[in-house]
Amino acid sequence: MEPTNKFVNPLLTDLYQITMSYAYWKCGHHEDQAVFDLFFRKNPFHGEFTIFAGLEEALRFIANFHFTEDHIKYIQEILPKSDSQYFDWLRSLDCSQIKVYAVAEGSIVFPRIPLLRVEGPLGITQLLETTLLNLVNYSSLIATNAARFRIAAGSDKMMLEFGLRRAQGPDGAVSASRYSYVGGFDGTSNVLAGSLFGIPVRGTHAHSFVQSYSSLQELKECTLLDCAGQKQDFRQLVLAIRSELGFNHTNEGELAAFIAYALAFPTGFLALVDTYDTLQSGVPNFLCVAVALFRSGYVPIGVRLDSGDLAFLSRETRRLFQEIEASTGLDMSHCLIAASNDINESVLLSLNQQGHQIDVFGVGTHLVTSQAQPALGGVYKLVAVNNKPRIKLSQDIKKVTIPGQKEAHRLFGAEGYPLVDLLIRVGEEQPRAGTRVFCRHPFEERKRVYVITREVMPLHQCVWDGKLAYSLPPLADIRQYVIDQLSGFRKDHLRSLNPTPYKVSVSDELYNFMHDLWNNESPIMEIS
Amino acid sequence: MEPTNKFVNPLLTDLYQITMSYAYWKCGHHEDQAVFDLFFRKNPFHGEFTIFAGLEEALRFIANFHFTEDHIKYIQEILPKSDSQYFDWLRSLDCSQIKVYAVAEGSIVFPRIPLLRVEGPLGITQLLETTLLNLVNYSSLIATNAARFRIAAGSDKMMLEFGLRRAQGPDGAVSASRYSYVGGFDGTSNVLAGSLFGIPVRGTHAHSFVQSYSSLQELKECTLLDCAGQKQDFRQLVLAIRSELGFNHTNEGELAAFIAYALAFPTGFLALVDTYDTLQSGVPNFLCVAVALFRSGYVPIGVRLDSGDLAFLSRETRRLFQEIEASTGLDMSHCLIAASNDINESVLLSLNQQGHQIDVFGVGTHLVTSQAQPALGGVYKLVAVNNKPRIKLSQDIKKVTIPGQKEAHRLFGAEGYPLVDLLIRVGEEQPRAGTRVFCRHPFEERKRVYVITREVMPLHQCVWDGKLAYSLPPLADIRQYVIDQLSGFRKDHLRSLNPTPYKVSVSDELYNFMHDLWNNESPIMEIS
Repeated sequence: MEPTNKFVNPLLTDLYQITMSYAYWKCGHHEDQAVFDLFFRKNPFHGEFTIFAGLEEALRFIANFHFTEDHIKYIQEILPKSDSQYFDWLRSLDCSQIKVYAVAEGSIVFPRIPLLRVEGPLGITQLLETTLLNLVNYSSLIATNAARFRIAAGSDKMMLEFGLRRAQGPDGAVSASRYSYVGGFDGTSNVLAGSLFGIPVRGTHAHSFVQSYSSLQELKECTLLDCAGQKQDFRQLVLAIRSELGFNHTNEGELAAFIAYALAFPTGFLALVDTYDTLQSGVPNFLCVAVALFRSGYVPIGVRLDSGDLAFLSRETRRLFQEIEASTGLDMSHCLIAASNDINESVLLSLNQQGHQIDVFGVGTHLVTSQAQPALGGVYKLVAVNNKPRIKLSQDIKKVTIPGQKEAHRLFGAEGYPLVDLLIRVGEEQPRAGTRVFCRHPFEERKRVYVITREVMPLHQCVWDGKLAYSLPPLADIRQYVIDQLSGFRKDHLRSLNPTPYKVSVSDELYNFMHDLWNNESPIMEIS
Repeated sequence: MEPTNKFVNPLLTDLYQITMSYAYWKCGHHEDQAVFDLFFRKNPFHGEFTIFAGLEEALRFIANFHFTEDHIKYIQEILPKSDSQYFDWLRSLDCSQIKVYAVAEGSIVFPRIPLLRVEGPLGITQLLETTLLNLVNYSSLIATNAARFRIAAGSDKMMLEFGLRRAQGPDGAVSASRYSYVGGFDGTSNVLAGSLFGIPVRGTHAHSFVQSYSSLQELKECTLLDCAGQKQDFRQLVLAIRSELGFNHTNEGELAAFIAYALAFPTGFLALVDTYDTLQSGVPNFLCVAVALFRSGYVPIGVRLDSGDLAFLSRETRRLFQEIEASTGLDMSHCLIAASNDINESVLLSLNQQGHQIDVFGVGTHLVTSQAQPALGGVYKLVAVNNKPRIKLSQDIKKVTIPGQKEAHRLFGAEGYPLVDLLIRVGEEQPRAGTRVFCRHPFEERKRVYVITREVMPLHQCVWDGKLAYSLPPLADIRQYVIDQLSGFRKDHLRSLNPTPYKVSVSDELYNFMHDLWNNESPIMEIS
């Protein structure tokens, strides 16, 4: 089990993890048994759900966790006064003493649910923090963003990720492609991501291809073998059709480029139509070539719009397709209209309102950089040491941590929808289907409810127990799991405008445990 | 010359680059001589300047550009119907026929200035597009963001990048550290970035370290060798000082953690003081340990604030430092106050207005994800084929490209400040210092000006001519170049609020060349 990236190694961490590990070691605390929770406090994008992703990468990191001599040498340089035995300890470290409990990759998750619970010696569990956060935060953010785009566009649209050029670095891009797919996209333009993860790759041509031709004379070799195997002069055929259809004022360079592209990909002809003018030149030129392909026995794919008023242009394009269908008798109904250009969730929602004829969306910058919110605020908090609970207090109640080892259960109601996620202490009685379960708000004393649950799904499982304890699902299965869950949640939790919060509760036992500790630990200040 | 990342290879591209290259090859256009400009259209962050970065990584990509048999095999899978000779051509490709002209890495640049001009056979220059954009866009964005943070904080502050856990993937983080440093930061928490690029690394401890102690009894071994080499019980010393200073109600676990940290790092004691309560517990506990260190002959470093009202807390902390200085006679004037927690450019400007006592800023999410604008819109446009200029027209004038091979010169005025960047055609007479230079707005006919220039700096140089033609400067030199240039530009171009646009002009020859082409190529539409 290799890490996906050579950068994913124990040096991919904040220096303070290493200085802390030295201080733990120096004071003999490094073997204390620690429990850390990795969780987030707020759903991204002003939404009410999050997709958990990055588990496989986190496990690959854990499986390979080991300081090489090069790593040690560098740490010796930056901590020159340290005790040399510390470095022997670093050399000895691996994750054989670690246990990790996690929710399944692709799960729909909510604030305060531990995504990972990491247990083991304090020294090493501390050293895992930053890398685990890095691997989970961005992956989950992108998967969530992609799922939101998918919900906004509708399940019948094809969604393609086109963000490589604007992504935050090479693997910012590769990760974006991977987790966009997990979140429900159908494919990517990123060839490397395709080759690494088996994601379908898509793409045809850019403006530069169109611009590279300025006249029909530049076409050197125009022979196309039609479906019957007959050679024909494809340029001549296109020009005859151009006269027939009356599209005589279109840009010739563009027409030449479309002919060239169709000659190279007669079964994959999708034309970018906005280099000069979408409706006056691009779509008419596409139609000349498309009809020529039809008459040669091929089926053209469609067009891509990349600027302008996409709702209007898509409707007009469809109308032109229908006119040509009427005048030629050819079946244009399967010709796709793809659209790209700065598409975000709001644009998708607005296009729906305006009425559009787009079949395929290519989404770049807003998806891969997660422009609406470019970071998920996942944190990794110490919740127990040597079986003693730890709580982080804060003037800000949202930042108080829930102490101790916990597990979560998802309770389903009579209609089959999830009603609430219940956090309980590990070891207390688990909620059972068909019973009345007492659920409390973690902080507000008077918010309490009995939930009659038809089904209970435990959310946590042990995924690492000194070695891998989880069968890594293929990416396509994780993606399908996301899709299945999204269709199993109430729509009002998932919608973009004013979504209903999904409840995360605690058991009575956990409530009392937390609040007793809170009262004991919280300093009572003197004010004057 | 290795690429910095194994993901930086010819598959890190959009599929359409590969399909286009096939169509070029199929029609015999792949050997046409192409010129592409890589540039951006708008400065990021509503600002009026950009720092160009990513050149070294771009050159490493170019130097290593080569399709391996594994790459070819994957492309054969996704383009199954392609002519097999195409793959022989792919196999033969490298950048020995390519020339690249670029502005120096770290240059302050402006919209429409080509950052790279890539010349060579159309087939291969097209294949470079996406990867070059990926490598330049994010690097330049982060360097610019960092420079803006630096300007907002002031040159006397220490600026540290703390973004690893929230960055967009592992090398999103590594690149963020690298280019934050280029943009003027002093260091990073990212150990891997430190080891790869020699950037100073910084960090002490987190809340979890404080939480891991709940009482003074947990301290096992408390012997500190003082500067004279004498053993002393450091805990006892701290407790005596605690009584002396009257700080008897602070959190004991926190005090224990600070003692433990000071024992491990007596010369590097910087305490995170907000785990329980900054002013009631954290700072007093810091002071107990700090005074004990002073009395043992060590100099404590300072504190880090990580929540709350940073302006207020920093002033109060400084006041406490001064009180202790007055009562103990120890020199606390060098004790640093560091601050972190969701710092962005606006927060820095607001802190300045409020008055603060912060010496060191740790900046994470907003810097590394570039939250204010997470992508730079760099583009790569075809401007000539076989010596014939190409123009991309658009209904949107901002998207029209300036055709042909161009170079840029920076004209300095009498006061030594840059006045204007002038784009000229390659081959036309270059502007000379001491002369009157005619400069035109690229699109607005009546905006013209004569510039009396004291000095002319050519911005472009050949950096790749079939092989590396550029001496790669060390990162610290690039950083210094950024700092030097920022101090050489008029402040009103750089400020955050209502900055003055810096002018990018074209020569009269380029203006006429472009507008003649525009008139010839632009379709005249019939409207009815």
